[in-house]
Amino acid sequence: MTRNLVLALRYDGTRYHGWQVQKNAVTVQEQFQKAVAAVLGSCPDIKGCSRTDTGVHARMYCVSMPVESEIPCERLTAALNAHLPRDIAVYGCQEAPLDFHARYSCRGKRYVYQIWNGRARNPFYDGYALHVHHPMDDRMLNRAAQDFVGAHDFAAFCSTGSDVEDTVRTVSDCSVRREGDLIRFTVAADGFLYNMVRIMVGTLLRISEGKFAPDCISEILKQKKRGGAGPTAPAHGLFLQEVFYDHIQF
Amino acid sequence: MTRNLVLALRYDGTRYHGWQVQKNAVTVQEQFQKAVAAVLGSCPDIKGCSRTDTGVHARMYCVSMPVESEIPCERLTAALNAHLPRDIAVYGCQEAPLDFHARYSCRGKRYVYQIWNGRARNPFYDGYALHVHHPMDDRMLNRAAQDFVGAHDFAAFCSTGSDVEDTVRTVSDCSVRREGDLIRFTVAADGFLYNMVRIMVGTLLRISEGKFAPDCISEILKQKKRGGAGPTAPAHGLFLQEVFYDHIQF
Repeated sequence: MTRNLVLALRYDGTRYHGWQVQKNAVTVQEQFQKAVAAVLGSCPDIKGCSRTDTGVHARMYCVSMPVESEIPCERLTAALNAHLPRDIAVYGCQEAPLDFHARYSCRGKRYVYQIWNGRARNPFYDGYALHVHHPMDDRMLNRAAQDFVGAHDFAAFCSTGSDVEDTVRTVSDCSVRREGDLIRFTVAADGFLYNMVRIMVGTLLRISEGKFAPDCISEILKQKKRGGAGPTAPAHGLFLQEVFYDHIQF
Repeated sequence: MTRNLVLALRYDGTRYHGWQVQKNAVTVQEQFQKAVAAVLGSCPDIKGCSRTDTGVHARMYCVSMPVESEIPCERLTAALNAHLPRDIAVYGCQEAPLDFHARYSCRGKRYVYQIWNGRARNPFYDGYALHVHHPMDDRMLNRAAQDFVGAHDFAAFCSTGSDVEDTVRTVSDCSVRREGDLIRFTVAADGFLYNMVRIMVGTLLRISEGKFAPDCISEILKQKKRGGAGPTAPAHGLFLQEVFYDHIQF
């Protein structure tokens, strides 16, 4: 009897060329498939909740896969963790309806972008936060970021090379919060375009530098031109934080 | 004119054999001395606030050194960070009285020991927290840990090989706190014996496993025998968190 399993992973993306298997580059999916093959004897068709870019991290990443094995979820988790490299781990596993699909059943996601805003670099955030030296006004940026909230055409916040036709997404919440010298930009939406969060961050950085006006976001959204928004912020500050489904929780 | 500078560092201890220079092993002090020599042309006599063991991390570590150079503190900090490896950084520098000594002027320190208490390992705490699978009762452990508070002879919490004569130390505060699956043991004292924090943690782990009674600590202190306390917990969960001085703050 086929069971459809959904698993939750955490991974440090530093060493990987994103999730999706590709030639001549090590990806998280490849490592995960190897571990599944080692435990189950063969590797089923694994669906990931999203592509993630090279160097992006995940505090929650979901995959679904059909398995014939009757191995209990808890034993499968422990066995996979014994086979996975130290920068990838499974922390949850449960059975899902047969039509559940990690990507298509997804109702939305939350990302966090970390910025280390101290004068000196911090060794503990090396590779896990963008280092910005100049003092950032988190309250002002938080107010500016509220213009992202709502249903908008995010075409200006999408890297070229994407073949998505519908560029309208709904941002349900968005915030910029400081804790000491660490600034966290958090954004939840029903879906994200290619590089959308990193371009949102690049735009907030431009505002922070005084190169863009604090109220520029609505106008950039209206213009729908990639060139109107800020640059794409580096990958290593970005974390996929949460993936939302109906009836599935970890 | 000689100035006596005090500098605050952060370092990820993973790659290092502790602070103090030794033959045939790379230490944080060696890396720091190289950077100072590169910036100032020669390396003065550098005093560190404490020895730290192989693999122990520091969110605050202080050094003092006499310098003849008139380089402003801010420029020295930036220059040192440009020369230091990515896992070591200076985040503060100020002038101190000529008789200030990073070790002898120290009034106390605070350490934090991190435990990842989730069933699955967490890639983001790999190397930065001890992984304990069995569920830990943080409230019970916090109550037990209060027996460390006060002036006690900590001989039972000192590894053999130490040549310290006076083993009395005063713990000013001590706590076990949970935040999700992360447990933090925090302890501040006027001074620490060799491996003292790691043996305190090893003892709390024994209590957590039900192998020692929750009220065992007073008796272990009274007996003053190393064998009565728990094992030395691994180094990688330990962080030197704060160093206290009169009139010097970062």
